[in-house]
Amino acid sequence: MRLDIAPSTNPSDYGFCCRIRPRFAETDAMGIIHHANYLLYFEQGRVEYLRSVGFPYTAIRDDGIDFAVIEAFVSYRRPLQFDDPVDLYVATAAATRTSLQMAYLATVEGEVRASGITVHGVVDSETGRPRRLPDWVHRLVTPAAGSIPSP
Amino acid sequence: MRLDIAPSTNPSDYGFCCRIRPRFAETDAMGIIHHANYLLYFEQGRVEYLRSVGFPYTAIRDDGIDFAVIEAFVSYRRPLQFDDPVDLYVATAAATRTSLQMAYLATVEGEVRASGITVHGVVDSETGRPRRLPDWVHRLVTPAAGSIPSP
Amino acid sequence: MRLDIAPSTNPSDYGFCCRIRPRFAETDAMGIIHHANYLLYFEQGRVEYLRSVGFPYTAIRDDGIDFAVIEAFVSYRRPLQFDDPVDLYVATAAATRTSLQMAYLATVEGEVRASGITVHGVVDSETGRPRRLPDWVHRLVTPAAGSIPSP
Amino acid sequence: MRLDIAPSTNPSDYGFCCRIRPRFAETDAMGIIHHANYLLYFEQGRVEYLRSVGFPYTAIRDDGIDFAVIEAFVSYRRPLQFDDPVDLYVATAAATRTSLQMAYLATVEGEVRASGITVHGVVDSETGRPRRLPDWVHRLVTPAAGSIPSP
Repeated sequence: MRLDIAPSTNPSDYGFCCRIRPRFAETDAMGIIHHANYLLYFEQGRVEYLRSVGFPYTAIRDDGIDFAVIEAFVSYRRPLQFDDPVDLYVATAAATRTSLQMAYLATVEGEVRASGITVHGVVDSETGRPRRLPDWVHRLVTPAAGSIPSP
Repeated sequence: MRLDIAPSTNPSDYGFCCRIRPRFAETDAMGIIHHANYLLYFEQGRVEYLRSVGFPYTAIRDDGIDFAVIEAFVSYRRPLQFDDPVDLYVATAAATRTSLQMAYLATVEGEVRASGITVHGVVDSETGRPRRLPDWVHRLVTPAAGSIPSP
Repeated sequence: MRLDIAPSTNPSDYGFCCRIRPRFAETDAMGIIHHANYLLYFEQGRVEYLRSVGFPYTAIRDDGIDFAVIEAFVSYRRPLQFDDPVDLYVATAAATRTSLQMAYLATVEGEVRASGITVHGVVDSETGRPRRLPDWVHRLVTPAAGSIPSP
Repeated sequence: MRLDIAPSTNPSDYGFCCRIRPRFAETDAMGIIHHANYLLYFEQGRVEYLRSVGFPYTAIRDDGIDFAVIEAFVSYRRPLQFDDPVDLYVATAAATRTSLQMAYLATVEGEVRASGITVHGVVDSETGRPRRLPDWVHRLVTPAAGSIPSP
């Protein structure tokens, strides 16, 4: 699966939200949060989201599978600042037999700051070979979080 | 400008290459380089590239402008490992009046590991307001590094 | 001021505690949290601690001063793991006219994992020149958190 | 072994030097390199140093041992800036039967910016249990790089 959806910028399209506070170490000399750190926030949100739906990442890894990142996309609207009370929305937006697409939306006091998509392939932790997506992932899919972009 | 090109996976489409060695600190518990670090390598390559064409980033910032990241995309083909001798290819693939798209390709001993695009808007360092792209950026554009994806 | 105390490994010597969950991105290929990240946790704890005593870091910076790090020390007892529920204890352990020493203790379910000290000089945000320590810092000092090491 | 030496600030006390260029991502909102990143530079220098003496870190790990970090100390003299041409000096300053102390010195155009010590225990990669220090480490020790601090 290739990245083929755009993340919704409407919080109500997402079923999960957690609070993140960007660290001072994550700022850069422009005085804002460095752009690479958004992928860390997305991952942190993904971990909290999976915990909330009853499949903590540590349990997934104990099952012998990993959700390897195949593609990642971030859209930066307005910079995050140190210590901003970030609401990070997370959803599983699409899934195939061996991969899934997660959507992310970061807002501060209701204002959209960034959004993104990560595409994951399910792989065997030992061999790295593709594995079938667990059934419970399919049940999490909320298509509204990721729309097909108009050409 | 929105991200609208795909990075070439052919090294000869790029006019610049530098060597990067992923740090041990950049590995993760899967034993590979964590996916967020690729954006750091792209940035490091961008800095080396701008230095090589006579416009070091420190000089650009002294001119009162920043190349703010608007969008970023990474495609992960095969994981980078600690201490891999990474050849990172960098090119300016497209430009408009106020923004540019940079393309990146990471190979190890000729094997494609990852590629990506970053979209930058030129902004005033003080006010953050959009500014016109310097003329020298237009002269750097090598369209072969970024093709328009087929629908 | 030079670092001249050792951090207490007794949680009850500290007046503040916050919860930190190490991110997956912060693990390394040894399968544990990379040692450099402990300084990030200490900083995050420092920020939460200062907020809790009524002097949020953003307000301190708005006052035109920074707590520049002069020295840092970390003792690693047992590795932190991804997603560990870390209790991070923080205290101001010593202060002089222009500098302070903060002590840190990281435990997981009561077991000591790491401890450390950071030494800070108060500097002017603009000029970087030394400034006097604000009075409120002196009132926070809890000497039990940092003992003088035996020779 | 506990950290019991202070790093020399004299480059000629070190037998190895490599060049490091701090990344833009490693700056913070104070406009300088964030203090946690110095541990990354030390590690990068350690890796280059071990390669230069014929024991690349990947080979050491293939031998089934790791140099686990037990303690770390950094002294920050003058801030590193983005893209500074940093000369990082590295030496093995002390060793016992199961541990070693490495010393580091970072200069820019001859000016001391920072120095530090890391203490490492040799452990089995699989079990994490202490192992004997390889003989070749003892032959690397250059005591001048780490002096015993006066009380």
